[in-house]
Order: sequence, then C-alpha cells, then structure tokens
Amino acid sequence: MTYAIETRNLGKLYGKTKALDGVSVALQENKIYGLLGRNGAGKSTLLKLLTGQIFPTTGEIKLFGETPYENANALSKVCIVRETGTFLKDMKARDALKVASTYYPNWDQELADRLVKAFKLDLKKNYKSLSLGMKSQLGIIVGLASRAPLTIFDEPYIGLDAPGRQLFYDLLLEEYGEKPRTIILSTHLIDEVANLFEEVIILEQGSVKLIDETDKIKEKAFFISGSQGEVERRVKGKQVIYRDTLGKTAVAGVYDRLTQEELGSMEAAGLEVGPMPLQKLFIYLTAERGEGDV
Amino acid sequence: MTYAIETRNLGKLYGKTKALDGVSVALQENKIYGLLGRNGAGKSTLLKLLTGQIFPTTGEIKLFGETPYENANALSKVCIVRETGTFLKDMKARDALKVASTYYPNWDQELADRLVKAFKLDLKKNYKSLSLGMKSQLGIIVGLASRAPLTIFDEPYIGLDAPGRQLFYDLLLEEYGEKPRTIILSTHLIDEVANLFEEVIILEQGSVKLIDETDKIKEKAFFISGSQGEVERRVKGKQVIYRDTLGKTAVAGVYDRLTQEELGSMEAAGLEVGPMPLQKLFIYLTAERGEGDV
Repeated sequence: MTYAIETRNLGKLYGKTKALDGVSVALQENKIYGLLGRNGAGKSTLLKLLTGQIFPTTGEIKLFGETPYENANALSKVCIVRETGTFLKDMKARDALKVASTYYPNWDQELADRLVKAFKLDLKKNYKSLSLGMKSQLGIIVGLASRAPLTIFDEPYIGLDAPGRQLFYDLLLEEYGEKPRTIILSTHLIDEVANLFEEVIILEQGSVKLIDETDKIKEKAFFISGSQGEVERRVKGKQVIYRDTLGKTAVAGVYDRLTQEELGSMEAAGLEVGPMPLQKLFIYLTAERGEGDV
Repeated sequence: MTYAIETRNLGKLYGKTKALDGVSVALQENKIYGLLGRNGAGKSTLLKLLTGQIFPTTGEIKLFGETPYENANALSKVCIVRETGTFLKDMKARDALKVASTYYPNWDQELADRLVKAFKLDLKKNYKSLSLGMKSQLGIIVGLASRAPLTIFDEPYIGLDAPGRQLFYDLLLEEYGEKPRTIILSTHLIDEVANLFEEVIILEQGSVKLIDETDKIKEKAFFISGSQGEVERRVKGKQVIYRDTLGKTAVAGVYDRLTQEELGSMEAAGLEVGPMPLQKLFIYLTAERGEGDV
C-alpha cells in the first residue's frame, strides 16, 4: 500500500533542542487528518519536513512513496497553506492566484473563481493591503483550488469570524466530497472542526502522543459524574485524565476502553456518563506539563 | 440605577461610512457581556467610543454615570485589553506590568504575580520579542490584575492554544467569582465562551441586532428535525433562520418563542428538538448578507 505520507523515526534538532523526535506515522490517501498540539509541540517542524522545506536530523520521509527532497514530482503533489501566507507583498491578489495556477498541476480555475465569489474577495487589492481575514481567504482559495493530492492547512483561519470559518469548513467538505484527497488540518480550534477529522494526530513535545481514528477516540473519552465514592470506585484502574469535585459530587474524565457492562453498571449505580469533546480530551492530555496551578 | 455603560443613539461616521448607527444600550454593573459581530460590524468602533479613544458623531455615552471624554476619573475605571497589545515595543514585560500597576487604581499586584506564574511568562523579555501567545498572556494578566470596574477583552486569545485559552477562561471566572466587575468579552470563538456570558450583544452593520440574557436566548434557539412535511407544518409562523434537507428529512433552525405545548406536540409527532448552540445562532443571524452561495 502506498501512503500519502510515511515517516520513520523522524527527528529534527535545532541546536540542542529536539523539535521533533522519533516520529513514525503513516497517513492514508484521501483522508482528512487533524494535526493537534500545543504551541511548541513540533507541528510546524513536522509540516516543514513533510513539504521539503527543511532537512531531518534523523529518519526519513516518503511522500506518495517518494522522498520529497529535490524531487519536483513529489513536491508538485503538495500544497501547504500557512497562517502567515507565502505571497509577495506587492503582488495583487489576482496575480497571486495566477502564480498558484501555474504551479499546481491539478489547479481548478473554475473552482478558484467560484471560491473568490463565495468569499467576495477583491482581487484588485495588493496582498499587503488585505486584512488578516482576507489573507486567510486567499490562502484557503489556493489550497482548495490547487486540488493537490496532499493539501495542508496550517491554522488557515486567522482573522476570520465565525461565519467566515463556517464557510471554509463547508467548502472544504463539499470539495472533499466531490474529489477526495489527503488533507491535513492543523488547528487550535479543535471543537469546531472535530467533525471534519477522520483521524487525529496529537503531538506533544516533539513526539506523537496519540494517533487514531476520531471515532475510536470518541469511543474511549467520557465524563463520569455522581457521588464521589461511587465515581472513584468505578474508574479505578482506568486512565483518568481529569478530576473535579464539588462538595460530594465528583467528575472524572476517563480516556480508556469501557465495556458495555461497565457503562451499564455505572448508569445503574446512578452515575451520569457523557461524551468528552475532543478539545477537552486534548486539553487534559497535553496541559499537564503546561502552565501549572494558581 | 447607575449602569456601567449607557449609550443613547450612539453613532460614528468615517467619511460617508456609518461604522456605528443608533446604538442605545445599557450594561449593568458586575455582569459578563459577550460582544459579538462579524468583521466590520462595528465592535472595535464601539469599544473605542466607550473608552474615550474617539468621539461619537451622534449620541452620547455614560460610563458609570459620567461622560468619558477628558474625564480621568471615569477613564481610570476602565481597562481595555486589545488583540494587538498597547505596550511599548522596547519595554520589558516586567516594566509593562509596572506601568500598568501605577495606572490602575485597583491594581492587585499579588494577583498579577500569581497570573505570571500560572502562565509561566518570562518577564525579562522585551515586549517585541514575545510570541503572539505571550503577548496575549501579558494582556490578560493586565486586564485581570487591573481589577478595573469595567474590564474589556477584545479578542485577547490570538496565538494561544486550546489549553492556554482554557486557562484564561478559568482564571477569568475565578477572579470574577471573587470580585465581580463588569466584563465585556469581544470574541470570534463563540461556542468556547458562550457559558461565560450572562448577556450577549450582537452587532450587525453598525447596529444592535440582538441584546438579551444568554439564558433567554437559549430558550428560543432550537434545531427541529424530522420528516419534511411535519417540520414545515410545525415551524409555520415561526422565525426560521436555517433550513436544510437531506432526502425527505428536514432540519429547521428556529429562533422564536416555543410554548411547552408546541414543544410537546412536536416531540409527539416524532420530531427531534434540540438546542441550537450560540455560535450557530450567530452564524445564521448574521451570515445572510454574508459571502453568498457557491
């Protein structure tokens, strides 16, 4: 099987700092992946390595079965849209699109035109005079219209308001439904896009903390609440990633396999069991070494 | 009754553009308000007017019963934390806090120290060398430690990851619980903070589209789904702000008063009735004149 991306023991040192360490992942073609991680977890380093912008210190990368380095064929299959944009400041938005259209072999001009209309983007403006939100829109248009077999969106929503972000998600799903491709979405707005991800990759301190299908993750992530003694008894031996108490009532956040019997007996014992949203799971899994308590 | 903020027919023209038009609102003391609006809806103009940074074209403003213009007493009661930051570039973070501590009469140094520790902020750094997330953290610390009777956070989360934002929300609620004050939170990340708001103000095209208690809004915002004919029959005469169909199944988003009988008969007729999250409500209410269809 050829993967869209395959890495083996991938690592990157900056001086003595391990930005990335021992990352081995295989991303299938035509799936939507969510790339999550705290600031400094190594997301940007990983994306730069995948797109051939920097060289790894250890390990290797295959893009659609080929090494990305000095390989125009492999790189022409990749489009990355970054938070900061990659266009020349004095270029008009129209010309930025024209450059993109000549760069990506699968470019769909009809789609680009529709997206410009959907976002009501003024193409006569210079890139530098666009607002943050308009820059994000231009990046999104390039990413979608590129139809690149691997399309990466690295926090593409800066400056977009809620309806603007919703429009991006809708357009992404519509386009993906018509012509599936491999998409990586790196984001800090997890709950908003959790439904888009088929698989989730969580990086922590340069390593893979979790990689799994979203559905499988959801099957293991619960909040269990009720009387403190009962909650503690039932979660014993499970991976508890969050705890809170209010008087005699306790809430436990569990990330673990729970059998139907276990779930049934919890409910029979008067405990409430509810799903834990992905963003909460992410916060509990990664905040431990975070900002400490007050 | 003295309000924290009272405006009457407030308007602001930039050239011929009406940035704000006929805004009359009264914000009570010691409540948390959510200020929502699309890009360009007038949020920043309103906040600049409230903090005496620009003069209105029409109407008037009272801050705790006084006019804010050239009124040091009224303005000393206000702290505004903006997305972009307001500190001198070459100032060390430590000195920025020192300046703030002399400016705000209610400044709580002990709280500031705790917050610096909670965010693990390096105070020796120059402001300009802080990352976006650290700048946001510094702004949040100033806003909270100011203990200003009116504290305004204008998108204070740029560059913060999900656990960082969660920490801000937790600290805000903790501090508000101990010492209530009037807080305005202007944000594009609506679902995340919807639970914090006691009242919501939605601006659209310079005017107030909606101002109400969050609880009252929630009581009127529903998704109703089921067979298309049944859904259409039941929502007739109601304000329907969203519609979607999939085969013979329809979903209607309703923002209207529904009686217990109406809700009961819908469920008896096999329809599903669920709550509509605030962010969806906002998107449907304000997207109409938005980016159009594709």
